[in-house]
Amino acid sequence: MTDVGVSADLSKLRVRTVEIRDDEVVLIDQRVLPHEERYVHCRTWREVAEAIRDMTVRGAPAIGVAAAGGLALAAGEAAASADDPAAFRAALDEAAAGLTATRPTAVNLAWAVAEMRAVWERELAAGAERARPAAVAAALLARARAILADDVARCLAIGAHGASLLGPGDAVLTHCNAGALATAGYGTALGVIRSAYARYGDLLVWVDETRPWLQGARLTAWELEVEGIPYRLISDGMAGYFMSRGEVDAVVVGADRIAANGDTANKIGTYTVSVLAREHGVPFYVAAPLSTVDLSVASGAAIPIEERPEDEVTTFRGVPVAPAGARARHPAFDVTPAANITAIVTEAGVLRPPFGPALAAACGGAT
Amino acid sequence: MTDVGVSADLSKLRVRTVEIRDDEVVLIDQRVLPHEERYVHCRTWREVAEAIRDMTVRGAPAIGVAAAGGLALAAGEAAASADDPAAFRAALDEAAAGLTATRPTAVNLAWAVAEMRAVWERELAAGAERARPAAVAAALLARARAILADDVARCLAIGAHGASLLGPGDAVLTHCNAGALATAGYGTALGVIRSAYARYGDLLVWVDETRPWLQGARLTAWELEVEGIPYRLISDGMAGYFMSRGEVDAVVVGADRIAANGDTANKIGTYTVSVLAREHGVPFYVAAPLSTVDLSVASGAAIPIEERPEDEVTTFRGVPVAPAGARARHPAFDVTPAANITAIVTEAGVLRPPFGPALAAACGGAT
Repeated sequence: MTDVGVSADLSKLRVRTVEIRDDEVVLIDQRVLPHEERYVHCRTWREVAEAIRDMTVRGAPAIGVAAAGGLALAAGEAAASADDPAAFRAALDEAAAGLTATRPTAVNLAWAVAEMRAVWERELAAGAERARPAAVAAALLARARAILADDVARCLAIGAHGASLLGPGDAVLTHCNAGALATAGYGTALGVIRSAYARYGDLLVWVDETRPWLQGARLTAWELEVEGIPYRLISDGMAGYFMSRGEVDAVVVGADRIAANGDTANKIGTYTVSVLAREHGVPFYVAAPLSTVDLSVASGAAIPIEERPEDEVTTFRGVPVAPAGARARHPAFDVTPAANITAIVTEAGVLRPPFGPALAAACGGAT
Repeated sequence: MTDVGVSADLSKLRVRTVEIRDDEVVLIDQRVLPHEERYVHCRTWREVAEAIRDMTVRGAPAIGVAAAGGLALAAGEAAASADDPAAFRAALDEAAAGLTATRPTAVNLAWAVAEMRAVWERELAAGAERARPAAVAAALLARARAILADDVARCLAIGAHGASLLGPGDAVLTHCNAGALATAGYGTALGVIRSAYARYGDLLVWVDETRPWLQGARLTAWELEVEGIPYRLISDGMAGYFMSRGEVDAVVVGADRIAANGDTANKIGTYTVSVLAREHGVPFYVAAPLSTVDLSVASGAAIPIEERPEDEVTTFRGVPVAPAGARARHPAFDVTPAANITAIVTEAGVLRPPFGPALAAACGGAT
């Protein structure tokens, strides 16, 4: 990837979404926020995989970082029990497959696993001292931590580029949580909003509550509350109303996977917002690191859409919202076509249509 | 109003949304459905007004019927304490004003109050025996009951007309609850769906959960569950996803007020659905009795939009969904422009654009 020229001071982060320690990965439990600030300590890659699956940690960049941490744990565990490189590699392959299978839509997870695999293949191939499992495990731990720090730095760069798209007094709508909690820190869409607020000091954020998981109500509102950035929480169905009254100046959302042509998978409901934005002439921005871009996928039609359990729609925090036996559908993501997107904000700058060549060029500069 | 040529057998209604007895108005408590089937007994017009305000009863036609029942109670009460026609009229005027003020958007409430006022003015003007408060109170009770029975009959007619717009195997999306619970029985939008299901035996209903009050999840899903009509509950943000996949054949919603040009106020989120429907070429139908039409309002811009308490957005059934201190907005309705509406289904038939002359003609035939 390109050097973003920003270094992040992790000690300054108000929230540590993911922390990669020598023998554990610590995750803030996003299922109980904002009512509780609880941390989950994962000591094995399987615990990390479970935490990704059950949404203790969520957000495309954050689950990528967590998966890297999980592989570092797998390496430490395997190195302790096997001195044989073949058995060590098999253990890592198993962990990589297990972590990749947890959630299908976000590509950052597969990207982070590939980054880690490149390290272990390189070190194992180097032979001698470097190929010893304990040494490879140390290299993997260092790489996982670098991925984490790098993610924060990329978010800061995204924020700086994106702030130039907004102006003083703007009302900006966001969907789901693409904030510090969705990344290793600072956030993508919320990174843009944080950066714009720091620059202009005057901003209003419309926060879609984002049913069924309520990432907007629980996580985005919490991040904005903590930072004192003015916001108003709304039900997802209200976005059209406020746009029709001219009360929304821009939309900024994150992404779980961006296809080669710019089609963007993101949290369910994003597509609806994009249709509304186009109808009302409101610019619609996607903010994401280049690790979210999947050039192997030509268009959004080929992005797998995760279908999650029905009871996540029929209940809320254990409280039923529908009659007993109610049937539901729960696609967790949708695809916003490139035609509905005004610009894609990356750490390499603001990309404009046609996105095909712009994404290819931006990713070509990356490795 | 025109005679709809349908008579309703109230004893066959599975759910009695509103019951008008001699000395009380009984309402099914829609705040606790579907988890509890509890009835609220209102013995004074003030209790009815409170039940409308706190959403024990909701749905434009239903609150009209409840208000009529409330005025019958006011008349009974006033007749018992005052034999003086002037004091009696003053008591009715006070009740009428109090009931009308409870909720500003739905016009059926004002319509029902006007229907009742016409009765008491006519009877008081008749003089002699007919003008005696006790006699007027009896006339008002009879009129309130007639309004209730008439509402069911109109819903049956709406259902019969609307079913012809659907076909076997259709997937129909509805927003909020325009069902038996929103009316005196059978429903408007759900009346169309009930009637189509009875006719074709093969239908799938997409039920928008309809945050923040979840009328779709709690009430519409419950009505469909009781009747065995196949449905899938979805979060409001999912409608665009299913439309983009060609999985929605039609949208049918109710209305709280229809302006002279066809602009339609309905539950917040309806406008968003209408934009999505137009984007995907999905027909968008409004089903409502002519008592919902307000020819005195030229366009939707003049319809007052009720703004309800913020905590109805930040909590659900007492469970907070957002951080402490979170600010929210809560417009309870929005306006769908006539241009987004394919047809308006009334008891007088299916009205097509241009709606101005069609509504004027349909209401001209009414009184």
